[in-house]
Amino acid sequence: MEKKEISRAVIKRLPRYYRYLGDLKAQGVERISSGDLSSLMKVTASQIRQDLNNFGGFGQQGYGYNVNYLFNEIGKILGLDCKNNMIVVGVGNMGSALIKYSSFRSYGCDIIGAFDTNINLIGKTINGIVVQDYSEVGHFIKEHNVDIAVLTVPKEAAGHIAEELVKYGIKGFWNFAYTDLRLGPGIVVENVHLSDSLLRLSYSMKSKGVVND
Amino acid sequence: MEKKEISRAVIKRLPRYYRYLGDLKAQGVERISSGDLSSLMKVTASQIRQDLNNFGGFGQQGYGYNVNYLFNEIGKILGLDCKNNMIVVGVGNMGSALIKYSSFRSYGCDIIGAFDTNINLIGKTINGIVVQDYSEVGHFIKEHNVDIAVLTVPKEAAGHIAEELVKYGIKGFWNFAYTDLRLGPGIVVENVHLSDSLLRLSYSMKSKGVVND
Repeated sequence: MEKKEISRAVIKRLPRYYRYLGDLKAQGVERISSGDLSSLMKVTASQIRQDLNNFGGFGQQGYGYNVNYLFNEIGKILGLDCKNNMIVVGVGNMGSALIKYSSFRSYGCDIIGAFDTNINLIGKTINGIVVQDYSEVGHFIKEHNVDIAVLTVPKEAAGHIAEELVKYGIKGFWNFAYTDLRLGPGIVVENVHLSDSLLRLSYSMKSKGVVND
Repeated sequence: MEKKEISRAVIKRLPRYYRYLGDLKAQGVERISSGDLSSLMKVTASQIRQDLNNFGGFGQQGYGYNVNYLFNEIGKILGLDCKNNMIVVGVGNMGSALIKYSSFRSYGCDIIGAFDTNINLIGKTINGIVVQDYSEVGHFIKEHNVDIAVLTVPKEAAGHIAEELVKYGIKGFWNFAYTDLRLGPGIVVENVHLSDSLLRLSYSMKSKGVVND
């Protein structure tokens, strides 16, 4: 496939295409026109064509999109054919909840370890994962080829821990700590800032404008 | 304050300003120039001035921004002076984790009830909140003036439940179900789609481009 720069806005929309196509596939739909996909997703047909053209354009005039093919291609673009080993660092409420999700596995992202400094948590088993002492994390990352850390630690600790994890070889962070990580180039950070989301909701409730992706 | 249309992009950035100003306030910083705020937040000073001008512009030439004043004003704009009663519907992993957070309270958003259909969960107490039978939800919403439902149910059930909750009087949803809710006008939906976030991370790991707000 032709390698070209894809805008951040398009990348942000890809998971949503992937989800709708997955739902269509599950319903047994084999092909769909950009028009039908448009009314389903509440996005203009022209935007759909434009977005999907970024990836070579899988639509055919008069036929529409092959759902299964497009689903698989977007999956590949999203990197779901790569396996990413993940560890959870910080096994509080959010950390535990994420360990319990098994649906992430279908995205090629597998939680294989969990770490905390709290001796009351170390040794506990959550969804088959034994919580280990954080002091073991460096060894574990090297041993198990871990790519991604799910960072669910208090914001005060997050920056320092993230820097440490980068030294141990972590290349990407799914960051739930309510702070912006400042790491070197080449380190990927995807933030989930729940408080920001709640503040947007609060704003929308007050102003009654829908803020929604 | 002058009422004008504020772009969605600005609204999306406001919580981040609020967070940085809160941190500065906690550190005892009383005023800050747009230049200093710019290097701290890694946003251009011109964007900061432009963004904050939307709200009447609180900066003064040669003085900068008054941290406390700006923090409070943005708080008001975000609606933090309004109290929103929230209920959690669906007390699974994510629902429980959210009930255990108490920091949402400082945003004027208070979880005052939790509901599920699972008899093994009904009657359980989580962080002082007793899980109630979902069949009681309509009564509770009216009785307690509930504005927001935190929707943490499986995606298959989400649409139907959301419509029901709207009939009972819910005006806003913090939607963690992995589906787009299609509700009437005037109903606010703020989505937290963790899987989309993980897919973006997966994409970035593959392409090594940082996708980050």
